[in-house]
Formats: sequence, structure tokens, C-alpha cells
Amino acid sequence: AALPSTRPRRLLPLSLGLFQGALLLYFIFFVTYDEPSGQAEDANLTANRLHSIYPIFQDIQVMLVVGLGLLLSFLPRYGLSALTHNFLLLNFSMQWALALQGLLRHFQHGQVHLDLHNVLIAEFAAVTVLISVGTVLGRTSPCQLLVVATCEVPVYLASEWIIITRLGVLDVGGTITIHVFSCYFGLGLSKGLFGATRQPIHPKDTPTRHSDLLSLVGTLILWVFWPSFVAVLCQPGDAQHRAILNTLLAMSASAMTTVVVSSLLDKDGKLSPGHLQNGSLAGGVVIGVVADMAMPPVAALALGTISAVPCILGFKFLTPFLAKKLVLQDQGGIHNLHGLPGIIGAVASVVVILVTTKDTTDPRFSQGSLANGNASEVLGDPWGGRGEGRQALYQAAGLAVSLGVSLLAGLLTGTALRLPCLARPPEQLCFEDSLYFNIQDGAESPEPAGTAEE
Amino acid sequence: AALPSTRPRRLLPLSLGLFQGALLLYFIFFVTYDEPSGQAEDANLTANRLHSIYPIFQDIQVMLVVGLGLLLSFLPRYGLSALTHNFLLLNFSMQWALALQGLLRHFQHGQVHLDLHNVLIAEFAAVTVLISVGTVLGRTSPCQLLVVATCEVPVYLASEWIIITRLGVLDVGGTITIHVFSCYFGLGLSKGLFGATRQPIHPKDTPTRHSDLLSLVGTLILWVFWPSFVAVLCQPGDAQHRAILNTLLAMSASAMTTVVVSSLLDKDGKLSPGHLQNGSLAGGVVIGVVADMAMPPVAALALGTISAVPCILGFKFLTPFLAKKLVLQDQGGIHNLHGLPGIIGAVASVVVILVTTKDTTDPRFSQGSLANGNASEVLGDPWGGRGEGRQALYQAAGLAVSLGVSLLAGLLTGTALRLPCLARPPEQLCFEDSLYFNIQDGAESPEPAGTAEE
Amino acid sequence: AALPSTRPRRLLPLSLGLFQGALLLYFIFFVTYDEPSGQAEDANLTANRLHSIYPIFQDIQVMLVVGLGLLLSFLPRYGLSALTHNFLLLNFSMQWALALQGLLRHFQHGQVHLDLHNVLIAEFAAVTVLISVGTVLGRTSPCQLLVVATCEVPVYLASEWIIITRLGVLDVGGTITIHVFSCYFGLGLSKGLFGATRQPIHPKDTPTRHSDLLSLVGTLILWVFWPSFVAVLCQPGDAQHRAILNTLLAMSASAMTTVVVSSLLDKDGKLSPGHLQNGSLAGGVVIGVVADMAMPPVAALALGTISAVPCILGFKFLTPFLAKKLVLQDQGGIHNLHGLPGIIGAVASVVVILVTTKDTTDPRFSQGSLANGNASEVLGDPWGGRGEGRQALYQAAGLAVSLGVSLLAGLLTGTALRLPCLARPPEQLCFEDSLYFNIQDGAESPEPAGTAEE
Repeated sequence: AALPSTRPRRLLPLSLGLFQGALLLYFIFFVTYDEPSGQAEDANLTANRLHSIYPIFQDIQVMLVVGLGLLLSFLPRYGLSALTHNFLLLNFSMQWALALQGLLRHFQHGQVHLDLHNVLIAEFAAVTVLISVGTVLGRTSPCQLLVVATCEVPVYLASEWIIITRLGVLDVGGTITIHVFSCYFGLGLSKGLFGATRQPIHPKDTPTRHSDLLSLVGTLILWVFWPSFVAVLCQPGDAQHRAILNTLLAMSASAMTTVVVSSLLDKDGKLSPGHLQNGSLAGGVVIGVVADMAMPPVAALALGTISAVPCILGFKFLTPFLAKKLVLQDQGGIHNLHGLPGIIGAVASVVVILVTTKDTTDPRFSQGSLANGNASEVLGDPWGGRGEGRQALYQAAGLAVSLGVSLLAGLLTGTALRLPCLARPPEQLCFEDSLYFNIQDGAESPEPAGTAEE
Repeated sequence: AALPSTRPRRLLPLSLGLFQGALLLYFIFFVTYDEPSGQAEDANLTANRLHSIYPIFQDIQVMLVVGLGLLLSFLPRYGLSALTHNFLLLNFSMQWALALQGLLRHFQHGQVHLDLHNVLIAEFAAVTVLISVGTVLGRTSPCQLLVVATCEVPVYLASEWIIITRLGVLDVGGTITIHVFSCYFGLGLSKGLFGATRQPIHPKDTPTRHSDLLSLVGTLILWVFWPSFVAVLCQPGDAQHRAILNTLLAMSASAMTTVVVSSLLDKDGKLSPGHLQNGSLAGGVVIGVVADMAMPPVAALALGTISAVPCILGFKFLTPFLAKKLVLQDQGGIHNLHGLPGIIGAVASVVVILVTTKDTTDPRFSQGSLANGNASEVLGDPWGGRGEGRQALYQAAGLAVSLGVSLLAGLLTGTALRLPCLARPPEQLCFEDSLYFNIQDGAESPEPAGTAEE
Repeated sequence: AALPSTRPRRLLPLSLGLFQGALLLYFIFFVTYDEPSGQAEDANLTANRLHSIYPIFQDIQVMLVVGLGLLLSFLPRYGLSALTHNFLLLNFSMQWALALQGLLRHFQHGQVHLDLHNVLIAEFAAVTVLISVGTVLGRTSPCQLLVVATCEVPVYLASEWIIITRLGVLDVGGTITIHVFSCYFGLGLSKGLFGATRQPIHPKDTPTRHSDLLSLVGTLILWVFWPSFVAVLCQPGDAQHRAILNTLLAMSASAMTTVVVSSLLDKDGKLSPGHLQNGSLAGGVVIGVVADMAMPPVAALALGTISAVPCILGFKFLTPFLAKKLVLQDQGGIHNLHGLPGIIGAVASVVVILVTTKDTTDPRFSQGSLANGNASEVLGDPWGGRGEGRQALYQAAGLAVSLGVSLLAGLLTGTALRLPCLARPPEQLCFEDSLYFNIQDGAESPEPAGTAEE
């Protein structure tokens, strides 16, 4: 299981090392902590803010590092790689986003003031990368994944800036900015990388009973902590409370609906583990964009129910169809979990905004953006003075921008991944941990033979 | 592994779908969010309350979804089913309890005001179902489990209302209302379902080294977060602090005692994984009813120690005895973990109340109930003016109600499960994931053969 | 797999039982809860303090019970034992530390007032034991482990008292007091136990793909929650915020660097799972001693980067070298994760203190010790009036004390472990769960044979 030449073997550590060096330099000159407040009441305020955000921040860390990592470990011979690549990509993308963010936005007196909020925003950028690479899971080298992260993070930051800051789109849970974006970036990536070459079904690309169990544990961890992901940037108080409850309702509904639909689609009424692993989370994707809006609880329940249906149908029919007709590979089925529910969510936000016209004086609409809430913070008018019709239009425009930018950027990135130096794994070594890890391959047997004296 | 007829294959999704539809209708007409407060200080209050309850709520979610799910996955060929059925039942029971609760209790101006506290109470109702079905684990179909949830939740809500609201029983951690209730409901269920038919020892009903490890991880997750379960509804401040510490002490003591007793009972001094998986949690069951009372720390330590002994002895002697003499099947041994320690806890609460007479002016006794703390909230008199002797009597009466109602309701429910349409799995397919899941059965082998071009 | 005589089989439960009895007696006479505050504003204060510390406390519990337990389960036939021994030791050491602490320090009016803070400090003492026994993992009986805990906890408490309270060393995250101490205690322990006897390579001492995956999950759990471990005892406000961010940065950097170095060291550029499992955490060890100091963010990033290098090099070269030349066994490689980064951290604290001279009026240096923050709490002068040069000297002295005391005490403890009554497992039964657990050994096969009617 050796790679053909020396170059690729050293490319990963050397480029990572270079990046770390550059980051250190950047931090030396540009990054600092906030000045300490000094006064006792300010210290109290800082402490309170920290205690309210830190547990939620940790929830999100557990989701991304443990939950998503386990969910991606559904292939029995690729678990270590899936978990490790997810972890590596999260760290790399987060640092890269932190650096870019500083350069692009948070410059104040030439210095970037680092706080937990910045790190959180950087993690959101990293999430898009973690989702996108799901389309090419198992058939890409770590070097290729780093290139994806390098390209995707700045495009995400730009797209998020256009959608939220420029267009004033309301999307507190990142349905449009994160889920739709990362999904279509991933599809573009896959198309760009594989082109018109049909990927054969790989013998190792089959979950076992055991790898399915671990992957389902990952899903359940994501399921439990998802409300934290959606609500972390909400206005504290009623809006945050409502966002948490809406997410709970939507996820509960999508878990139930997944069982219904998956069972109905099977001739023996059996469930597919893959459906359960993904469909249960569809409610979390769909609800993000409307979670804090002044809609009745039934809307959350209905959205959760509705979102799981296309998700399961997608796994059953759309993914094979795309693979066959468009020669479009989506290994992890992310289009079904992030793409379809994401679009439904965006459409739902248009409807909710148009329907809840009468409530414009409602102070609940006070925070609507992931990164920068100012666009919609005019009390008494949630749409920044533009009226509900126009706001609905802007929501649609946000969806269009997210779709267009991500698809195009993904395609370009995918094409770049074809560079031979990036060490794409040969087909027979795909989905195989031993390509990236020193592991005892015969050690699975219960009783290894022979005792050696040193 | 196909089911005999078409009906049962479609019964699960159709009935679940019907329930979801009814729930949506119910939500449309009856459920709303609280009116937003509007004033800044109220918003602050809402935010503070949310930040103090939400992390604890998440702890409980992790316990139920991940911890309990893994604990129940102790059978190597039934892990996916155990985890999934637990997850499905939690969602169904929670939604069902939310709907019933609204109908029964929280009607205000014809509308149910949904908040995190309601959801929490609904989750407690769901817990009883999750525990009860442990007696029939692996030998029941999902349809049967849904029937159990449908019957148990309303009975639980009624019993909890009688015990806490009517009788004014103090039971902050749900020892009597949740653990004792669910245990005897489960035993009744098992008896009602299996009747006098002795269940044979099943070849797949044996944990492996690996499934035992995952199950132990589930135990440890439950062990870590149990203080949150006990303390979530305590009065914030000293009572909550004390409840957390008492739970910590009791669980630590029962973990140690489990090792002592399990080792002493074995002729080679070895531990049984099953003892460890259950006995370590006995302290959490026993302490619930007295966790916030003004007793010295040694009482928590002693209760934890005492509770683990009958738990382990139960696994070793009582469960086999019941199976043999009373033909009473208790697959998960829940009587040992929830029944015996629960009764010990109830008795302990009587003793604590009688002994701590002098402290009646102690403001610490300010919150005593899971759902409705008003019964005992008269400052300076923790027993609502009824004196310690009478309160002790009421505690005993609460235990009796819980025992009687649950046993009877369980028996009736179990009998209902015999309906042939509910698709009870045939004996040779019990404890087998492939009855409910599309999984590659031969895929356990490290190298599946053949590469197929699509 | 039977032990040779009866005594050792009963020694563990009997000694544990005796300890539990003694602890109960001690609690009866000496331990009580704080008096309730009574006033409403005090109750509010207690509630706020609880809500700010409890989620962080739970993070640490998850780290120790689940994260560390899984990390130690890297041997495929020793997972149950590793997880259980870790859990047992944590409980025993915590209770033992609680008792000793009370006796030694917190006596007030003859009574120990138990609160969550005490429990936390006791858990820190337990951590040292959990780390130390990593050197002898798999070759020691539970009895031996209990002896280690019995000896190590009082020495730790004494050493921590000298270093923090007497010398006024700043070490908020326990780099010197916990990590360096436990590492060299463990090395002394191993030397004292094994002496000049070279331990042969054991056939079962090889991770598999699967056990490596679970162990990596443990690492990731530790990685996610480590900031809580470092920051839990910081002054709320800016210092705590900074400690969390510094830990995040350091751990992210060490995760990246681990991949770089591990890949560079391998001729095929592959990663070693063991490197990843340990190196990713090096940043958390190194940062503890400086996490809350007024240093720029780049320092955290640099320390994380630097610490991972010797950690990986240690696994590759130093551990085999020590085993060969000094006949010093370090089964879990704890010297690489806790020793080397710990020393680097201590040295870094000297540098940081000397370099940040100008900032002595900075109120940020207001809390520096794990157990007793008073030593350095004089506002406007972080070094308690002693000047930065002297404080730097004291930091070095603290390191020397930690090193010397732990090595000596470890050696003595290790020698004590040679007592034949402590039931050291025979070599051929090392790394084998079935020595301590009743498990079906043949049950790993997918289809156990035979169905027996009871």
C-alpha cells in the first residue's frame, strides 16, 4: 500500500507545516486579545457573557469533532481516516478562517482582537468544508482536502458577507449560508474532480452492522446538540428560547418521519441505517433560517416533517439517478441532507416572512444574521425598513447567490484537485485506512500469534 | 428474515404517520409560544433562566439519547435496533406527552404555551417508557413498543399528578414517580405479554467483549450526567447545589460498592460487566427522592452504598428466581436497577423526613416536586403544614400508588400486546437487527469479494 | 484464567469495602454541607455561582470518565479493564482526596463543609493517579492500582500545597502540579515495580483498527473539553476567557503539528494512530501553566506547535530508548504527553513572566493557583510583591519540587507494589480482560452455536 512517488508523501506535512509557520507570523504581527476591562462591573459582564456562550460553544465543538466524525465513520475500513480527516480539516479551516476574517473584516487599529465569538464564526466557516467533502469521501487524499479547505473558506466568507451583510438575509442557523452553500460546493467539487468518469462501486464501500452503529451514535450526538448550533448567535432571551424549541420540534418531527418514509419505501418494511443517520437531522437543516422568527410551533413541526421526506427519497432515487444520468458522485449523500432541506428552508423563510406581515412591530425579530446582526436590528421593523415583500425577495436572492457561487467555486476547486501532485489515491486503495495509517492489518483476528522477546 | 404478511410491515409507518398528522392538527389549533415579554428587564430574566436550564436540559438529552441508547446496545446483534427503538420511543413518547399535558393541564385561554420546561416534563414521561420496555427488550416489535408508549404515558401523567400534586409527595429526582413506576409497569408488561410461557434462553442473547464495552460507555455517560437529571427541577441555589452533591456522592458510592459485591459473589473474584453497567447507576435511582432534603452528606454516601447491594444480588439471584418461579421475564434486569433501589429510596425519604424534625424552619425545603412545586413551597414549613409524621405517611402512600397503578396498567398493556396484528417477532428472529434493518449480513468479514461496475 | 490462590481474589473487594466503611464513619463525624444562606440575594449568588461552575465541572467529568477511559482502551482485549479500572480509580481517588483534604486543610470548627469546589479539587488529585498508572497499564492488578492511589493522593496534595500555597507558583491549569507530577510519579512507579527486569513485548499489546478508532474518539472528547479543565479555576471574566482561548489555540496547533511530525517521521508518510491520540493533546498540557497570563495569542499557538514535536519524537525514539537503556517501561507513553510538554510549559512560564515585565499593573494577573488563589491576588502586583525575577525563580523551584517529590514517591510506591499479596497478573494473562471479567470468550464469532431450553 505504498504511494507511487516520494513527493506526495511529503507534500501533506510540508504544506501543513508551511501554513502553521505563516499563521504564527500572522499572529505575531496582527492578533491580540481585547484590552482587559479593568472595572469590576465590566468584568462581571464579561463573565456573564462567557458563561452564557461557552457551554453552547462546547456543544458545537462536540458536534463537529465527535458527532460529525463518527457519522462519517460509516465505512468499516475507513473509520480512522474519516475521523482524522474531519478533525484535521476542522482545525485547518478554522485557523484559516480566523486569519482571513481578521484580514477581511475585523481590522481595528491594525490589530485583530480575538475572542470566543470570532472563533465561533471561524468554526462555521470550517463546517462548510466538513460538509462539502462528504461528496468525495474516501476517494480523496488529505492533500486534496486541504486544497478544498483553502479554496472554500474565502469563498464562503465572501458569500456569507454578500448574503447577510449586503442583502440583509435572515438566516440565524445558517441554512442558506452554510448548508446550501456547502452542499452545492461539494457537488461542484465532485463534478470538477471526477468529470465524466463514472466511479465504480467499490467493494469496501459497504457499511457493516458495527460501523453503522458507530455512525448512528454520531448522528445522535449531532441530533442532541443541534439546537445549540442554531441558537448560539440568536439574541439572548425570547428569540433564543424560540429558536431552541423550534429546532427541538423540527428534529423530533424529522426523526419520526424518517422512520415512516424509510419503512414505507422498503418492500419488507425494514429501515435503512443510512436513512436514519441522515434523515433524523433534516429538521435541523431546514429550521435554521426560520428558527427565531415569530411563527407558531406547528410550523417547526411541519417543516421537520416535510424536510425528511425529500431527504429519504433523495437517498433512494435522486442520488442513484444523479450518479447515472449526470455522472455526479455524492458519496455521503449530502445533497439529500443539506441541499434539499436547505432549499426547503429558504423557501419556507419566504413564506413565513410574507405570512407574518402583521407582526412587524414585534420586537422578536431583532437578530437575524449569523455574523452581523445590525442589518435587521431596527426595532419595530424587522426588515430594516424594506417591507416584507422586499425582504422575501432578498431571501430568495440570498438562496440564488449561495447556490450560484458555491456551484461555480466548487467546480473550479474540483478541477484544481486533478493536479497529479495532489496524490489522489488509486481506486483499489480507496476507502482504506491503511493508505494513511500505520495499522496492523492482520490484527483484527482475536488471537495474534507468537510472543517475541525483545 | 421476512415477516409473514404485509399488514405488520406497513402498520408501523402508517400508525406513526397518522400520529404525526394528528399532532400537527393539534399544534395548529392549540399550541403557541409565550408572548414575548417586550421589556428589557424581562428579556434579561428570560435569558438568564434559559442559560441556567439549557445546559442541564442538554445533559439530560445526552443521557437519554446517547447514554441509555448505548447501555441498551449490549447485545452484539441487536445494537442498531436497541439504539433506534430507544430513539424512536423517546421522540414518540415526548410528543405524545406534550400533547396530553397540554390537553390535561396547561390549558390557558384555550392555548398551550410551549416552553423548555414543558418539553422537559414531557421527556420525563418518555423516560418511563424507555425504562419499562427494558423487560421485553429484543422480543418485541416497534409496533408493540409504540402501543406501550401510547398506554404508559397517560397513566404516568395521571399517577404523577396524584402522587405529586394531590398527595404532595416530595420526589425531586423522580425515584417514586419515574423509577418505581416504570419498573413495575415493565414487569406487568412482561407478565401480560408472555403470560405463563417460559421464554427460552436465546443463542443471540449473549453480550460480547465488544458490545459490553459500548454498553459500559453508555453507563458512564449516564453516570456522569445523572446529577443533572436529579437536580434540574430543584429550586436554584442551595437546594440544587445539595442535590447535585448528594447525587455525586451516592453514585460514587454505588460504583465502588458494585465492584465490591460483584467481585465477592464470583468464585474467582471476577466482575460481571452487567453488574457494573447497572449497579454503578443504583445510587442515582435511590437518591432522587431525598436529594434536596436537609440531610447530612453521609446519608447520600450510605444510600448509594446500600442501593448497589440489592441491585447486584438481584441480578445474581432474584432475576433468575423470578424467571423460574413466577415465569416473569426481565430481559434488561430493570427490576434490579430501578425497582429495588427505587423502593429503598422511598423508604429512605420516610426516614429522612421523620428524623430531620427539628429543621422544619429550614428554608432549604422549598421545592419538592418534579412538576409542581407549590404543594410544599410554604417557607418555614416544608410539609405544607401537615407535620412530618403525616408527610412520611404520604411518601409511603405515594410509593403504594406508584406500585399499584403501574403494575396494573402494565399488565393490561402487556395483554394488549398479544394482539396478532402487532407483529411480535418470531422467536428465532429475536435479538436480531436484520429483522428491522437492511444490513449486509455477510459484510462483517474484513474483505468483501467482487468489484461490480454499475 | 484463574488466579493462583484465594487471597488475592478477595483482597480487592475486602479492602475496597473496608475503605468505604471508613469513609462512611469519617463522613458521619466530620462532613456537612454549608449552612444555607437564607437571604434571597445570597441564594441568587449561590445559584449564579452554581450555574457558572456546574457545566464546566460536567465537562471535566466527561473528560475523565468517558474521554480518558476510551483513550486508554486502545488494546483490543483490554478495553473493558482499562475503562473499568480508570472509573474505579477515579472514584476511589476522589473519595480518598476528599477525606484527606478535609483532614488537612478545610477544618473549620471541626467540620468539613462540602461543596462542588471541594469535589473539583479532589478530582484534580484523582487525575494524577489516572495519568500515573498509564506507565504500568495492563501489567498491574486492580489491587496494585488501589495501592498506587492510596500512596499518590497524599503526596500530590502535599506537593500541590508546597508548590502553590508555599511557593506561590502560578499554575492555573495544573501543568506543573498535575501533569509533571503524575508523569514522573508514574515513571518512578514503573521503575520501582519492574526494577531491572525487561518487560517482553506482549502479543496482545497491539491495537487493532477498531480499538484505535475508539481510543481516538476518547482523544477527541478530551480535546474538545480540555479548555474547561484549564479554565475552571480561573478568575471569572477576562482571565477565564483568555485561558479558554489560549487552550483552544494551543490544542489546535498541536493537532496540526502532530500530523506534520508523525507524517514526516514515517518513510511512507503515514500517520501512527498512537501519535495522533497523544500528540493532539500536548497543547493542553503545555498551556496550563501560562493559560491565563497576559501573553499575546501567538504564544499559545507557538507553545502548542512546540509541544507536539517532542511528544511525537518521544514516542518514536525516547520511549524505546528508555525501555532499552534504562529498562524503564512506559506502556501508555505518558512521558511523551505529560512529561515533556509539562516541562516545556514550566519553562515557558518562566519566560512569559520575565518578558511581560511591563504589565505588572495589569489586573489580569489576579488568580494563579489551582487550589488557593490568595497567594497572588494582590491587585496591581501579580507576583505577590516579589518581582518578576523572583517569581520566575519560584516557577523553576516549583518544577523541581514536582519532579523530585514525584519521582521519589513513585519509586517507593512501585517497590511497595512488588508485595506478592497484591496479585500482579502473570505475564501470559496481561492485557487480557478475561482475567478480571466474566466474559464469553468464544462469543466474538457472529453466530454462537446451540439453543438451550432452560
